[in-house]
Amino acid sequence: MRVGDTHYRTVWHSTADPETVWIIDQRHLPFRFVEEPLRSVQEVARAISDMHVRGAGCIGATAGYGMYLAVLEASRSEDFEQSLQQAASYLKETRPTAVNLAWAVDRQLDVLSRASKTDSKQALALKTANTIADEDAEACASIGQYGLPLIQSIAATKPGQPVNILTHCNAGWLAFVDHGSATAPIYAAHDTGVPVHVWIDETRPRNQGARLTAWELAGHGVPHTVIPDNAGGHLMQHGQVDLVITGTDRTTHTGDVANKIGTYLKALAARDNDVPFYVALPSSTFDWQMADGLREIPIEERCSQEVTHVGGMLDDSEQQVRILPEGSPAANPAFDVTPARLVTGLITERGICPATQEGIHALFPEKAGQT
Amino acid sequence: MRVGDTHYRTVWHSTADPETVWIIDQRHLPFRFVEEPLRSVQEVARAISDMHVRGAGCIGATAGYGMYLAVLEASRSEDFEQSLQQAASYLKETRPTAVNLAWAVDRQLDVLSRASKTDSKQALALKTANTIADEDAEACASIGQYGLPLIQSIAATKPGQPVNILTHCNAGWLAFVDHGSATAPIYAAHDTGVPVHVWIDETRPRNQGARLTAWELAGHGVPHTVIPDNAGGHLMQHGQVDLVITGTDRTTHTGDVANKIGTYLKALAARDNDVPFYVALPSSTFDWQMADGLREIPIEERCSQEVTHVGGMLDDSEQQVRILPEGSPAANPAFDVTPARLVTGLITERGICPATQEGIHALFPEKAGQT
Repeated sequence: MRVGDTHYRTVWHSTADPETVWIIDQRHLPFRFVEEPLRSVQEVARAISDMHVRGAGCIGATAGYGMYLAVLEASRSEDFEQSLQQAASYLKETRPTAVNLAWAVDRQLDVLSRASKTDSKQALALKTANTIADEDAEACASIGQYGLPLIQSIAATKPGQPVNILTHCNAGWLAFVDHGSATAPIYAAHDTGVPVHVWIDETRPRNQGARLTAWELAGHGVPHTVIPDNAGGHLMQHGQVDLVITGTDRTTHTGDVANKIGTYLKALAARDNDVPFYVALPSSTFDWQMADGLREIPIEERCSQEVTHVGGMLDDSEQQVRILPEGSPAANPAFDVTPARLVTGLITERGICPATQEGIHALFPEKAGQT
Repeated sequence: MRVGDTHYRTVWHSTADPETVWIIDQRHLPFRFVEEPLRSVQEVARAISDMHVRGAGCIGATAGYGMYLAVLEASRSEDFEQSLQQAASYLKETRPTAVNLAWAVDRQLDVLSRASKTDSKQALALKTANTIADEDAEACASIGQYGLPLIQSIAATKPGQPVNILTHCNAGWLAFVDHGSATAPIYAAHDTGVPVHVWIDETRPRNQGARLTAWELAGHGVPHTVIPDNAGGHLMQHGQVDLVITGTDRTTHTGDVANKIGTYLKALAARDNDVPFYVALPSSTFDWQMADGLREIPIEERCSQEVTHVGGMLDDSEQQVRILPEGSPAANPAFDVTPARLVTGLITERGICPATQEGIHALFPEKAGQT
């Protein structure tokens, strides 16, 4: 999407500098826009684990390009296969909950393992990384087109008034390669002239809503208001939310949705107030093995400093202030699981389906055999 | 409660310095512990309006002592009665929505108006101020004793393990004169040797949980962990919360609970996971007129800067950092209403009752006629 006058993706490769992968270092948004070059598997791993990049699609695409750098490094090593496998394991360990990461790494391994001896593995890995990125962007564009009628149908019931959509965290273009998942229908509606207004949960502890989603929507001109994570239930009680759309980091093929911590609370409030609660995702985010999200999806516990401190701008520099008494401990589970029963529907690149095994398998029959 | 080795109240008078009222200036907690002397009605008014003190019980007691200083000032004026009435109006205007404030001021006026000519009005006003403070502390102590068996009965089911209690915002001793409301059963349990561990919601946007409740519990030695407001539902899903206890700013006589924004979301999660959800309150917090909390209780919209900025410690000074992109708007509803149907019970100074009109009226029959 647009940053100033330039169309950006979150991760890209340029033939002008063939052994470098570029990302937007999202840690500095919304205060500074920083393009960061990554020149080794280690730099890619650190960019993922330290959240220079974050979000399912963006992590997956970055890992895909990381595997391209892994092939470059393996080509210079004594044992190509051992080096490649080590890099793959290393990359996979950076964010254990992110299913797209392992999926992109495994896709690269699979393509490379089937390469003929005459194939250039470097070219193949780069082509695969570009394909992963392109497919991610195209899937998000499709999600936008399938989600658009949901917003249009609400708009038809309240002419002249904006459709109020609540979202949590950042499932915007910054979380993918382009367009975003939860934001794709919103951008599509805005671009076709349907009036929308977005309530953005600030999304403590890392504030991706306040920092990233607000920055994205402002850049694209979409009306929005940032709210504390505590406020969404109150707004729903008072008819100020027409629709909730969130993203997901992993969704079981039975419809349980792992997403940023706090999503479950909004799903409960949506149900209690008859507000539709949709989850937008490219099908790469489905986990075709897991059937019970609450029991099976591992939940990452992140550093407590994300809770004890808050980062922001002071005068002209980024600073971290401590908000807790010294010595008081903090816990920081990064995700929660919203049971399928609370999800109105899943917006995918093939259309909308119920958050049930039947619904998901009907839309992706070729995957049903893998479960 | 304990601060280091000393037992403190939030507001107190010492005969050693008879024309001074002391408060803890809570604006600096948890970073600095500041005792502040108040020597005039004007200083009391500023302490209330600028939130050196906050919380219903604490504001009421401070206003009670403010009226003692008002009597001292009136005694030195040309027209005692006029001076006293002016001071009363002045104090009442500092926080117009705080019911306990007007109540304490009016109680002083009433007592003084009924004094005989030979009574010392100064002694009478001081005695009344002390009584208001003592009654607040005693009501909270009673809440603690009535809530204690709830915690003891859970402890009996898990010997050797702490009872995990989640609380939201600060309904601790800092909000009252001593003990607190939601914290009173927790302190009572801890002091009698029942192992407890408290999950403290940080409570954006003002972070009263992270700043005040954590400081309180640390000072008294109660094990606790601060969590983002988003985390409570996840913890409940995984059996890590045995009990929720919150305070309330206003509860209808039908059991609807207005409390800090986000309370409703925790009540929904508690219900979804069969976790008991209790609200602790002195009966002065009941609204005997309102029957429909969601429709009738006015919700204060506070300054958006509380959302756009976060205050904390940077090196050795308190600073505010901006967390939103410049220009992105923010909304800040300060309270929400938890419908009575989600409340397991109300812990009052007379015992525990269901959050129903029948239950509340049975415990406070003398008030039932006022509704």
